[in-house]
Amino acid sequence: MEKREPLYAGKAKSVYTTDDPDRFVLLFRDDTSAFDGEKKEQLDRKGMVNNRFNAFIMEKLSEAGVPTHFEKVLSPTESLVRRLDMLPVECVVRNVSAGSLCRRLGVAEGQDLNPPTYELFLKDDAHHDPMINESLAETFGWASAADLATMKTLTYKVNEVLRNLFAEAGMLLVDYKLEFGRANGEIVLGDEFSPDGCRIWDRETRRKMDKDRFRQGLGDVIETYEEVGRRLGIPFDA
Amino acid sequence: MEKREPLYAGKAKSVYTTDDPDRFVLLFRDDTSAFDGEKKEQLDRKGMVNNRFNAFIMEKLSEAGVPTHFEKVLSPTESLVRRLDMLPVECVVRNVSAGSLCRRLGVAEGQDLNPPTYELFLKDDAHHDPMINESLAETFGWASAADLATMKTLTYKVNEVLRNLFAEAGMLLVDYKLEFGRANGEIVLGDEFSPDGCRIWDRETRRKMDKDRFRQGLGDVIETYEEVGRRLGIPFDA
Ligand SMILES: Nc1ncnc2c1ncn2[C@@H]1O[C@H](COP(=O)(O)OP(=O)(O)O)[C@@H](O)[C@H]1O
Ligand SMILES: Nc1ncnc2c1ncn2[C@@H]1O[C@H](COP(=O)(O)OP(=O)(O)O)[C@@H](O)[C@H]1O
Ligand SMILES: [Mg+2]
Ligand SMILES: [Mg+2]
Repeated sequence: MEKREPLYAGKAKSVYTTDDPDRFVLLFRDDTSAFDGEKKEQLDRKGMVNNRFNAFIMEKLSEAGVPTHFEKVLSPTESLVRRLDMLPVECVVRNVSAGSLCRRLGVAEGQDLNPPTYELFLKDDAHHDPMINESLAETFGWASAADLATMKTLTYKVNEVLRNLFAEAGMLLVDYKLEFGRANGEIVLGDEFSPDGCRIWDRETRRKMDKDRFRQGLGDVIETYEEVGRRLGIPFDA
Repeated sequence: MEKREPLYAGKAKSVYTTDDPDRFVLLFRDDTSAFDGEKKEQLDRKGMVNNRFNAFIMEKLSEAGVPTHFEKVLSPTESLVRRLDMLPVECVVRNVSAGSLCRRLGVAEGQDLNPPTYELFLKDDAHHDPMINESLAETFGWASAADLATMKTLTYKVNEVLRNLFAEAGMLLVDYKLEFGRANGEIVLGDEFSPDGCRIWDRETRRKMDKDRFRQGLGDVIETYEEVGRRLGIPFDA
């Protein structure tokens, strides 16, 4: 496998083509952004930490029967993935109320959500990733009804697997965002699962252990990502 | 039937108890508001026009099998309705893109929406009626899954009936908002259907014939509501 052309540089990762038309390389950069790219910083070691973190989680999900794009780690900051036609829809599950949900709906942070909630957002920075729903996604052609049903089932399945995984390591998986794509007609989990795209709280103290440390200027961002990883048993490079 | 105590004064209507505990009087006032009550005006004759308009539409819906709270017109600006426990959820169907949808999603105004879209909003002025979905409504207890399913079915049924009604009178029913409540375990259409809570365009010229005339300062607000009514065959008081 040979890495070839840079195809797309996003806010935190870059995508490269390879000599295999069905495989991409995902490069995890140290760039960190929040508030639609208004707050930006380089956080040392973040690329490596998120690459290892993502690999570990994707393997757990794959073992549990969730089809993912992840194939293997290529270097400290790079992974080989299946090439997907990404759907411009973000799937969010919440186990505990936090973040934009509380601001939008005027509900208190830290409430247990039972059953866990499911929301869809349009991946569209220019419009601040607006909330959508299945009806809008279908009518505007962002995803078909069948794809949306599969995405919902898979997103909840991910919750079953990861909620337990974090709980057993003394953490609460508060919420998370997933992105899916299609390969050969199949809906496959793409992008990444890392503390950049979810909320994780310490189960006892409710200390924030995710990108909210960056958003809210709480400090020790990557040190805390590494602590989450250590609790889960993820090996990081020295 | 005897009108008794004022129970609630909303932005455009007031609700009164009656000597029958299962019946309310709905008084349609001339008050007109937009932008969460930021723009407010008294529009002469609006109460009467909307009361007659609503009575006509509710009767059409009832004939088509949609359960509604409407019982009868009591005076030019008052109607007798069944008392409902209102659900704090607004159901919106759109046949053509317009308004907040276009701003939120960055889509062009005036596109045919196929299939017509369905959205839910939380009735909460303090939070600017935020968009929600069925999962959030269920988890936060705003409506049960069964109620939400009924509301969706009824809201689309209303679309079948009213889209044709307006089309036959040379108008496009662009979008509308419905509110439902419960009485004796049944989900019943409540509130009102009038040009205050929907968008209606002339089918040929696409001239706006609804509350957007007020929101956008286009003038002739009530004269245009009356024109819509005349085209539909609604009798207004002199
Ligand atoms: N397997 C894949 N195939 C193609 N594109 C992918 C795949 N996995 C993720 N992507 C896309 O690559 C980009 C990853 O970079 P990121 O920094 O997250 O970008 P963004 O700023 O768009 O969120 C995203 O746009 C994501 O949708
Ligand atoms: N049948 C009914 N029973 C009880 N309440 C109703 C019924 N129909 C409408 N309502 C409520 O009465 C109020 C109508 O007044 P309105 O001016 O529209 O108020 P708002 O400013 O709250 O929208 C609304 O809050 C509506 O939910
Ligand atoms: Mg991204
Ligand atoms: Mg109202």
